[in-house]
Order: sequence, then C-alpha cells, then structure tokens
Amino acid sequence: MRTIIGVMGGGTADARTTEAAYRLGTLIAGEGWVLINGGRDAGVMAASAAGASESGGLTIGILPDDHLDNVAPDIDIPILTGLGDARNVVNVLSGRAVIAMRGGAGTISEVAHALKSGRKVVTVDFHMGVAFKPYYDAGTLIDAETPEEAVAQVKRLLAEENAR
Amino acid sequence: MRTIIGVMGGGTADARTTEAAYRLGTLIAGEGWVLINGGRDAGVMAASAAGASESGGLTIGILPDDHLDNVAPDIDIPILTGLGDARNVVNVLSGRAVIAMRGGAGTISEVAHALKSGRKVVTVDFHMGVAFKPYYDAGTLIDAETPEEAVAQVKRLLAEENAR
Amino acid sequence: MRTIIGVMGGGTADARTTEAAYRLGTLIAGEGWVLINGGRDAGVMAASAAGASESGGLTIGILPDDHLDNVAPDIDIPILTGLGDARNVVNVLSGRAVIAMRGGAGTISEVAHALKSGRKVVTVDFHMGVAFKPYYDAGTLIDAETPEEAVAQVKRLLAEENAR
Amino acid sequence: MRTIIGVMGGGTADARTTEAAYRLGTLIAGEGWVLINGGRDAGVMAASAAGASESGGLTIGILPDDHLDNVAPDIDIPILTGLGDARNVVNVLSGRAVIAMRGGAGTISEVAHALKSGRKVVTVDFHMGVAFKPYYDAGTLIDAETPEEAVAQVKRLLAEENAR
Repeated sequence: MRTIIGVMGGGTADARTTEAAYRLGTLIAGEGWVLINGGRDAGVMAASAAGASESGGLTIGILPDDHLDNVAPDIDIPILTGLGDARNVVNVLSGRAVIAMRGGAGTISEVAHALKSGRKVVTVDFHMGVAFKPYYDAGTLIDAETPEEAVAQVKRLLAEENAR
Repeated sequence: MRTIIGVMGGGTADARTTEAAYRLGTLIAGEGWVLINGGRDAGVMAASAAGASESGGLTIGILPDDHLDNVAPDIDIPILTGLGDARNVVNVLSGRAVIAMRGGAGTISEVAHALKSGRKVVTVDFHMGVAFKPYYDAGTLIDAETPEEAVAQVKRLLAEENAR
Repeated sequence: MRTIIGVMGGGTADARTTEAAYRLGTLIAGEGWVLINGGRDAGVMAASAAGASESGGLTIGILPDDHLDNVAPDIDIPILTGLGDARNVVNVLSGRAVIAMRGGAGTISEVAHALKSGRKVVTVDFHMGVAFKPYYDAGTLIDAETPEEAVAQVKRLLAEENAR
Repeated sequence: MRTIIGVMGGGTADARTTEAAYRLGTLIAGEGWVLINGGRDAGVMAASAAGASESGGLTIGILPDDHLDNVAPDIDIPILTGLGDARNVVNVLSGRAVIAMRGGAGTISEVAHALKSGRKVVTVDFHMGVAFKPYYDAGTLIDAETPEEAVAQVKRLLAEENAR
C-alpha cells in the first residue's frame, strides 16, 4: 500500500499560494508519496497536481462532480463522487496526513473533518485561529510557513506513527 | 413549507452551553420554526431538541448512523443517513440559517459547510477566529453572545431575505 | 418518535402509477404515518406527497439538490442533501419499511439499498426479477398489486416487529 | 488520464465466482486498465484485486469505512470514504464501464447506480431480471457469461465511445 498525503487549499489562489502549491507537489512526489486532492482544474488543486505529476508522482483527485469536465489535467486517477461538498470528507480520510494551504470555507471544512477523524494537519502560511486552539494545543494541528517546512513536519509525524 | 433553523454544537458540552442550548430550543419553537440538528443523544443536540420539543416544536435529527440506537429522545423525525461525518453537510443545508454553539472540529466543519453553501451562520459565545475573517467581514457569519441575541439576528436575516 | 414509511418510485410515471401513488399517500396519512420520499416535484414523489398532505399527513423529502428549486409543493420538510444519487441511501434508511412503486434504475437502487440495510420492501405492481430472488425467498421483499394491499402488508410487518 | 474499469460483486462469493473474479482482474491489468472496486478484503473485491495486482495492474478500492482495517491486501490505493453503503455510488461513477459479477443487494445497487448515471454495465453470469428490462433493451446493460467475454464487450463499448 502506497503512502498517500492529502493537499487541501482554495479553488482560487493568489500567485504566491499557487507557486507554493506547485512546489509542494514536487516535494510530495520527491518523497515517493501519492498526492490526493480535490481534483478540480483550479487553484491549489491544479497547481499541486501539476507539481507532483511533472516530478513523476501519482495524483488522485476526489471530485465533487459525477463527470470529468472539471478535472485538472495533471490528475492521473479522477475519482468521481457526485457528492458535492460532502466529497470533502472523502478527500481528507485517505491521506496519512493532510497539508492545508490557504483557502476559504471549503478548505476550512476539510481541516476540521481531518481533525475530527484523527488525521494530523499541517498548514502552510494559513493560521486557523481560536476555534481550533484545542487541536493546536494537542499537536494534531501544526502551522508551517513553507511547503518545505510542512513536508518536514509530515515526515516527522509519519516517523512517530511508524515508531508506535 | 415550514421555516427550518439548524442548531449545531458539541456532542460534549459544559453546563452553561447545555443550558443555553436548551433555551435556544425553546426560543426556536416559540418562533414556530422547525429545529434541525445532528440528532444524537448528547450535548447541544440533545439539549436543544429537549428545549424545542418541550415547548411544542417539531424536531428533526440528521444522524450519522444507519440505526436508531443513539437518537436523542426529543427528536420527532430521525433521518438516518449512515454517512458518518458527511452527514454534517446535510445537517446545515436544510436550514434557512444555522446557529452554532460551542463545539469541536465537527461543529467547525458544519459552520464551514454552511458558509460554503451560502447559508448565514450566527454563533453563540463561540468566536471562530482568523480563518473565517472573510465571512465575518461579509456579514454572513455573525457572533452573538446569547441564544436570545442569536434568535434576534436570525429573525433580522430572514426578514432581509424575505424583503428581497 | 413518529412512524415513518418510505415511498419510492419513478420521477416519470404513467397515469395509472401516478394515481396509485396519490392513493398510497392518502392511505399512509390515514394510518398516522409520516411519509418520506425523494421530494422532487415529479412522478411518484410529487403524487404521493400530494395524497398524504391533502389527507393531513406530514411529508418529508430527501432531495438530491442543495437548493429548493425542484421541491414538490406538498413536501412539508425538505431535507437538502446536495449528495446527488447518494441521497437514495438516506431516502430508504429512515423508514420503518419502504413501499416501491414502478420506476427506473434510481428506484431499483433504493429497493436494493433498503434490503442491504435490513429494511423490508413492499412493491406495488412492480416485480423486481431474478436478481432479487434471495430477498423474495426470505420474505424481506414482497410484491403487492395495489396501494391498499401494500399498506396492509406494511401493517402486518410492523405488527410482527413490534411483537418481537 | 488512465482508463479505469469498475468491478462489482458480492462480499461473499462461491469458488467459481471467486476464480472468475481473479481471472477478470488479470484480464483488466492485461489491457493496461486501472481496476476500481469496493476495496474490502472479501469476495469479488479481494479476488479481482489479487488478479490485477499479481499481473502488474494498479488497483483502487473505494471503502465504506473510515479506517484501513478491512482493506484487501492487493489494493494499491485505498480511498476511505466513511460513507457506508453510499460509497457504492462513488464506486461506479469513476469507471469508464462497470463489470458486475454475482452478488446481493449491494451489487445490485451498484448496477442500478451505474445505469442511472449513464455508465454501461456488463454482467458476468449474473442476469439482473425484469426490472432492468429497459436497460437491456437499450443496450446499456449487457449479459456476458465469462470474464473473457465481458472484457471483449467492454473493449467494444470503449471503442464505440472513442469513435464518437
């Protein structure tokens, strides 16, 4: 079974976040991990898939739609759910850990679902704020500043889990 | 068609939140609204259903389970989904507005899904923090201090929508 | 807790099925049961809700959409899921039993999901065929010819369950 | 984007069906297709994944659970949904076509969902019966006797779609 890492983030993203998402994709592929994200041809989804795919990584997209019209071109395996926003739950469950880049309510829902299901979440330049304090305190939610730092945190978390 | 209002909040709740949830239920029934919540026999779900039901209101519960074992006794109509946490999406879509009391990641996911789907959210003594700033700024997410204040805000929001 | 009975059937229906669906709705309301169906303004859904509502019954609709545009006018409580066809699972889980009128693949999926989850299914003038033979043999799937006969079968099934 | 083919069938299977499911998996891998199924360590799911994986194919499992405890060992990419039976919808949407081996109500629900969503279904030694007659008549549901015949039918269907 392959190690799968989730990447969440906005369907709209500024240039800096888009560039960081691409770099995050390359780093994930470099680790030999499979990237899973929301699969749409937009924002953090498209950029992180492009980064991973161009570095030889496998990319899985969990789509809200029941058709292929909006799939990012660098998604190797599009999983069509037809579930709308409920696909956000599926999105975060399959990863060993979730990395969350800047986004809106959809991304926040994914961070929350991941934590609810006991998955660790590392953010990139995206502080979640006071409602998430118990998870920051417990160390299941961690802020990083860069993709490089986030991947280092995920490697540490996986090593800890494997050591158990 | 009846006016439905969603009430979200923790499956575990301290005495103060539980008391406020019960009071919120009575206020919702008093307005003639149908209460919809997560339906489990725990925390804000059980307390708000009890308040509404004992004041003669109709209560709908959207359960994560596919069986009736964990349904709060004051839920009139248990909707069994078998969807686990994905039921949180269903939970918030059916209300004209959502009132969110203190809770953990599950409650936060519901606030986020409601905002993602264009529903207005009023919190009770539960500030969501910096990740939600765009929604506070847009006035689609509003903090209230008490159930009474939250219901007043919802009445104002419904009047605004009806005026359109 | 109220007794809820599910009514499934085609979004398109011929005159005879539509008339039978309306009559089935009136019978369900006459028993004091809550009717739950797919909620759309079409076919068996609209007709059974009309029959129940005009006889004073409460009607719940489990919609595939995340908006109210396609809700049948006689649905009292529209539950918006945004789940597309996955709402078919929710549709059948909440009823004590399911009555299935003529329909296409959507209705067949609901009959199958109900049986998979241990719910009893009574059809009306709609034989399911050889793939369902084990369920006919086990008595969890029963063919009736008319709404009156189907309701009599459901009453018998509920009495049996209550006697346990 | 890779060509994905769905394989459905019972969680319990007799020796003949199990052997055929394994052979079907080898044939799918031989075509260079990705196999998608329900992912559990049981029946047609485990056997078809074993056949595909041992022939060098990539295997995706769409699990009903939110944890990895019941995943078949030959699933490369387990997608955890936590959706229970609603994952059956996801199961069939992602394939270009669905091959259905013998099974119970779960498998029947998958055949129905696939047809509802416009996917072609080829059965293997599993006639669906009278309720499915419109789909047999339309040629969107096709009975085959063996895995070899089913794969030949799928190749024909894909060629037809590609020719459009």
